[in-house]
Amino acid sequence: MQNKADFLDIIYTTRAIRKFTQQRVPNESVRKILEAATQAPSGGNRQPWRFLVIRDQDQKEKIGAAYLKGALEYQQKTLQQFKEEQEHNSNSYLSLHFSESPVVIVVCAEYRPLVGDKLGILSQPSSIYPAVQNLLLAANYMGLGGVLTTNHRYHEAEIKTSLGIPESWVILTMIPLGYPAEKHGKKSRQPVEDVSFSDFWDQEAEF
Amino acid sequence: MQNKADFLDIIYTTRAIRKFTQQRVPNESVRKILEAATQAPSGGNRQPWRFLVIRDQDQKEKIGAAYLKGALEYQQKTLQQFKEEQEHNSNSYLSLHFSESPVVIVVCAEYRPLVGDKLGILSQPSSIYPAVQNLLLAANYMGLGGVLTTNHRYHEAEIKTSLGIPESWVILTMIPLGYPAEKHGKKSRQPVEDVSFSDFWDQEAEF
Repeated sequence: MQNKADFLDIIYTTRAIRKFTQQRVPNESVRKILEAATQAPSGGNRQPWRFLVIRDQDQKEKIGAAYLKGALEYQQKTLQQFKEEQEHNSNSYLSLHFSESPVVIVVCAEYRPLVGDKLGILSQPSSIYPAVQNLLLAANYMGLGGVLTTNHRYHEAEIKTSLGIPESWVILTMIPLGYPAEKHGKKSRQPVEDVSFSDFWDQEAEF
Repeated sequence: MQNKADFLDIIYTTRAIRKFTQQRVPNESVRKILEAATQAPSGGNRQPWRFLVIRDQDQKEKIGAAYLKGALEYQQKTLQQFKEEQEHNSNSYLSLHFSESPVVIVVCAEYRPLVGDKLGILSQPSSIYPAVQNLLLAANYMGLGGVLTTNHRYHEAEIKTSLGIPESWVILTMIPLGYPAEKHGKKSRQPVEDVSFSDFWDQEAEF
């Protein structure tokens, strides 16, 4: 396997991958990717993450069905619409083919409401999504790809039952993972000066 | 400036930096770090982030005071305790010296509640904290350091007023940034096999 080693190259080329070849993802790659994930920071270094690595086809079909239902609800579309647009809409494609992903990594955190935490469980997302980003960057580094998804939230209880996830844990993302059948590469982003201010809201960035 | 270029080196050595030298952070470095941040994924590529780059001393003192109050409340400690333990407790040190950070980057997102989003604004944290992780990794790459903090949440309204942040936007983190007066380096983490399962909760990881 050829690894891309340059940091900025990984940052700039890692994009959402939603179509995969059927090539098996080596255990060693999964381990390295998860090790990169756990190098992320977390509040008080509590490392509240758990990674469920799903390869079992029955399990993938159960969570894939729940994912598809959630995606249809979020998009407010019909199954027929998804089928018609899957050629050119990679979200619809992924929703229809979620269970065909070689690996699905379900990332959980223990629910921990905090006094004064007006954003609910802000303290958990801020300790989980940095690890998820490390995971996706490391996947690109290993020649793999994946995407951060959140459509699980519509049928989370059903998915938790299928996977045996305890009541007190929440799912923060389900990441399909595999060798890309589409390319990593340059992404469309707003320029920094359009999303930055200096010292006060709406004050032009001075850099 | 000597850049560390190896991807895994950056992943493994980026740790929370809470003490900074007074060396000025070049505008060019801030720009590059923010550009790396904006390379992260976001739901529907909406890029809901805004970065407030605070260098103005008056502004830093206002948000530093709010940060300190929040940290005391979260830790349930007194100012005297913070002062006594600041030599060996870098959280207490940062809380007392927040306004001395050469730069503070306040990261905001537009509040966007979603139907069926039981985790409140899960869709926003999942579109912001990956960018924050890119930012922290890129800081290390540029020879800088910082830390993801969330103590702003106790006095968010006060900080929003100081910075002119509109009602409909929320702060997700305030990141102090500068040249490290402490070292990046190896971190203490649980082994992957202790935080991973295969196919079902509590089922031993097979990799």
